[in-house]
Amino acid sequence: MFLKQSWYAAWWADDLPADGLSPRTIADEPILFWRDDQGMPQAILDRCPHRYAPLSMGQRVPGGVRCGYHGIAFDGAGRCLQNPHGPIVSALSVRAFPVVEKYKILWIWMGDADRADPAAIPDLAFADRAPDTAYSRGFLPTAAGHQLIEDNILDLTHADYLHATTLGGGSVTRARPNIREHEDGTVFIEWPASNEVALPFFRAEMPDPDMLTDMWTSVLWHPCGVMTLRFGATPAGRPREEGIDTWSAHIVTPETARSSHYFYFNTREFRVDDAEYNALFAAGLRHAFTTEDKPMIEAQQRRLGDADLFDRSPVLLASDAASTRARRVYARLLAAEQDAATAS
Amino acid sequence: MFLKQSWYAAWWADDLPADGLSPRTIADEPILFWRDDQGMPQAILDRCPHRYAPLSMGQRVPGGVRCGYHGIAFDGAGRCLQNPHGPIVSALSVRAFPVVEKYKILWIWMGDADRADPAAIPDLAFADRAPDTAYSRGFLPTAAGHQLIEDNILDLTHADYLHATTLGGGSVTRARPNIREHEDGTVFIEWPASNEVALPFFRAEMPDPDMLTDMWTSVLWHPCGVMTLRFGATPAGRPREEGIDTWSAHIVTPETARSSHYFYFNTREFRVDDAEYNALFAAGLRHAFTTEDKPMIEAQQRRLGDADLFDRSPVLLASDAASTRARRVYARLLAAEQDAATAS
Amino acid sequence: MFLKQSWYAAWWADDLPADGLSPRTIADEPILFWRDDQGMPQAILDRCPHRYAPLSMGQRVPGGVRCGYHGIAFDGAGRCLQNPHGPIVSALSVRAFPVVEKYKILWIWMGDADRADPAAIPDLAFADRAPDTAYSRGFLPTAAGHQLIEDNILDLTHADYLHATTLGGGSVTRARPNIREHEDGTVFIEWPASNEVALPFFRAEMPDPDMLTDMWTSVLWHPCGVMTLRFGATPAGRPREEGIDTWSAHIVTPETARSSHYFYFNTREFRVDDAEYNALFAAGLRHAFTTEDKPMIEAQQRRLGDADLFDRSPVLLASDAASTRARRVYARLLAAEQDAATAS
Repeated sequence: MFLKQSWYAAWWADDLPADGLSPRTIADEPILFWRDDQGMPQAILDRCPHRYAPLSMGQRVPGGVRCGYHGIAFDGAGRCLQNPHGPIVSALSVRAFPVVEKYKILWIWMGDADRADPAAIPDLAFADRAPDTAYSRGFLPTAAGHQLIEDNILDLTHADYLHATTLGGGSVTRARPNIREHEDGTVFIEWPASNEVALPFFRAEMPDPDMLTDMWTSVLWHPCGVMTLRFGATPAGRPREEGIDTWSAHIVTPETARSSHYFYFNTREFRVDDAEYNALFAAGLRHAFTTEDKPMIEAQQRRLGDADLFDRSPVLLASDAASTRARRVYARLLAAEQDAATAS
Repeated sequence: MFLKQSWYAAWWADDLPADGLSPRTIADEPILFWRDDQGMPQAILDRCPHRYAPLSMGQRVPGGVRCGYHGIAFDGAGRCLQNPHGPIVSALSVRAFPVVEKYKILWIWMGDADRADPAAIPDLAFADRAPDTAYSRGFLPTAAGHQLIEDNILDLTHADYLHATTLGGGSVTRARPNIREHEDGTVFIEWPASNEVALPFFRAEMPDPDMLTDMWTSVLWHPCGVMTLRFGATPAGRPREEGIDTWSAHIVTPETARSSHYFYFNTREFRVDDAEYNALFAAGLRHAFTTEDKPMIEAQQRRLGDADLFDRSPVLLASDAASTRARRVYARLLAAEQDAATAS
Repeated sequence: MFLKQSWYAAWWADDLPADGLSPRTIADEPILFWRDDQGMPQAILDRCPHRYAPLSMGQRVPGGVRCGYHGIAFDGAGRCLQNPHGPIVSALSVRAFPVVEKYKILWIWMGDADRADPAAIPDLAFADRAPDTAYSRGFLPTAAGHQLIEDNILDLTHADYLHATTLGGGSVTRARPNIREHEDGTVFIEWPASNEVALPFFRAEMPDPDMLTDMWTSVLWHPCGVMTLRFGATPAGRPREEGIDTWSAHIVTPETARSSHYFYFNTREFRVDDAEYNALFAAGLRHAFTTEDKPMIEAQQRRLGDADLFDRSPVLLASDAASTRARRVYARLLAAEQDAATAS
């Protein structure tokens, strides 16, 4: 079960072509995405109500898509455009989903259409501010439930062990984190560090790689699976402006109970015009996420099978405080949605 | 669940070799087929009653087959021929199934042996009448339940969309079909067409490819999954004899709830001696069935999972009338069989 | 369900390297094996109690292993050596399993540690007595439950059919076996043969390959899946010492309900220094077990699905007497264990 009244990242906007039909399962629903004649993204259930043929095996037609099996056509609102076999009855429609393009991402709303407010998409404006040479990204189809991936980010102490030679160094584990839960359901955690040697990735950017620095590391989690991360370092005692700063987002969209669409992007506020450095930075992150995080999280899921980790009595540590909060928020929102669905 | 008191097509007769052991699952039962010393086909359960070893891993011996594990031998009636480990007790037997060769097909009867009447096999005599140069066929292992495949044939409007450039042209969709349900459980549907340009496949056979024609298209469905199809065209207003005519059979044998053995063959009553044309015609049909029907039907099945389409509230159209009738007949026969089994 | 208060063969001892982490599932439990700094084998549950990460994805550290995800370290007793995230609480431990090295095999005890007595490992001292040139072995991951594999050995009449040209010859089937069940839960069966031509494998070792011989063939089964086999032949009427003799062990460790770790080794008491003959002998056995037994047993399991053979009403023969006894012993021990677990 997943939150339904929620925006989910579905595609990098420029991965949805002007032509063609792009199927992707979101929160257990098979969805067909395409761009209409004006280039506007559309999303409807990828299943003809007539005989359950995937509409993605059909064709684009003016104003919509036509099922490849018996020729019934639908528009982006899910209304039947054409029924070669008789009248267009009201049952001959397919569920449509609100979609918007924002922050270079195509978002889909899986709940009641009249509640879909693009303003509810978490603020990722830094994606638009960064020049191409200070922006990189990746997409990881991951064979694990969304919460294991979110747990991974909400406890960045893992970097000290799983990414010891790139993103870790022990400073996150040594930090005393601050955690705040906000009224909007977001959970914030930061791991302040003072007088630490910078992370391996950051050392070359310091006046002296081995000097002591102050570092900031934080995650802001949103219930829809969007997490914004900030990493930076400055020489010990100096203002942040004299150091280096990065903003990232990790975005986890449930595909099924045991698989997820994992998007991430990174922006830098230093060396912003250095395309070569940008490529190196991107390769380093890709290596860490693809060869270190993804295999570990997928192995966790295999060990758990279909069970939820928190039903298996894990030994929780202080470092699990943020993920535990986030799971509690998620459970509360899910229960509220289900109560509302039952009441209505 | 499948009809048991029924003949099912199991093999092209000449695909069952004179020697060797040929296993195939029919209606969820693993069956071992072979030809005896006189060349007569035999079929018994492919499972030694001793330790469940597949008998198909054994050897042909005079008069039967010997289990490869502990040497117990059985004949085609399922009687034990030899037990190296002791007396031949009555329990040491294996279920045998009636088989007959007819219309170039090996048929198996999955019900009570004393009710197996070869006269109940649907009439496919056109298979024997056609010379080799006017006969072609194919076998498609299909990952879908038998009813989805039968539905596909019982609603040939799909040809106008799925096979638009070969077998379709819109005339089936435009036709006003006649449907008849017969006392023997068969369902007949025809889609008469007048003053239509011939199907793409037929155009070159008309005096002028773009001329108007009268066409006949019909399906006779039998509950055992045998469907006979007739397609033909003649210049508008002229008798059928002046046109071209074809007879086909599509035969669907359940393997499991979600997989089927799909046999089809086609015979022509024009250009009957033209081997080259026969090969082209066969290749065209193979292309349509393999790259258009099969992927679509298998995708339907994946969308349905283990659910039956008719339990998922599909929106039914006028064009579903014949398949809905056939499903109703099948459900009635199945219920009757089960009542009889309970009563006895 | 498997016997828990039991030693199981887990590895050939020299397949467990001095360095590195070796995971293997035993009786449904994922286990991590390694050698400590003194070379002593260790075994703990391969699952960090914190977040279910496989510890086998971590690293060896002095005194134990460290989880690769968040750096928590454990020793071979399952005690936490280091928790970078806080105090070492008692819950932060992982189950450890007794292991011993004996007869060139690493054995693991899956039950209560205080009941683990190495003296309970069946006597396989012949493994240590044989020189390398009279010893060979193999390991077969087999997709079948352990009882089907044990049944196979407890009814060696199968050799007369499944291995007709190598290990069979009809003499086992013709024998009148003696069966004894012992108080310690072991089951013994022997198939004495007199005045028989030797097995194909043994013929060349007789003064005349076609001469009559006396042969001995026996199996001693232990409930933990260890079976010791003795095969030999001597010229008819002559003492055993004038003939040839072999000792083997077949050892079946459950991995899951439908898969097993199958170890076997063979020792000879003739041509003991003949390395070339040893290699030929090993290749012959490997061929028989890999291409004849394993496919047959795996096919049985596929025919059975998740069902137990004895719940499917097989027709049992005289030759099933020993396997039936062994299954009865196993069921009794299993029930006793479960009663004890319920009572405590």
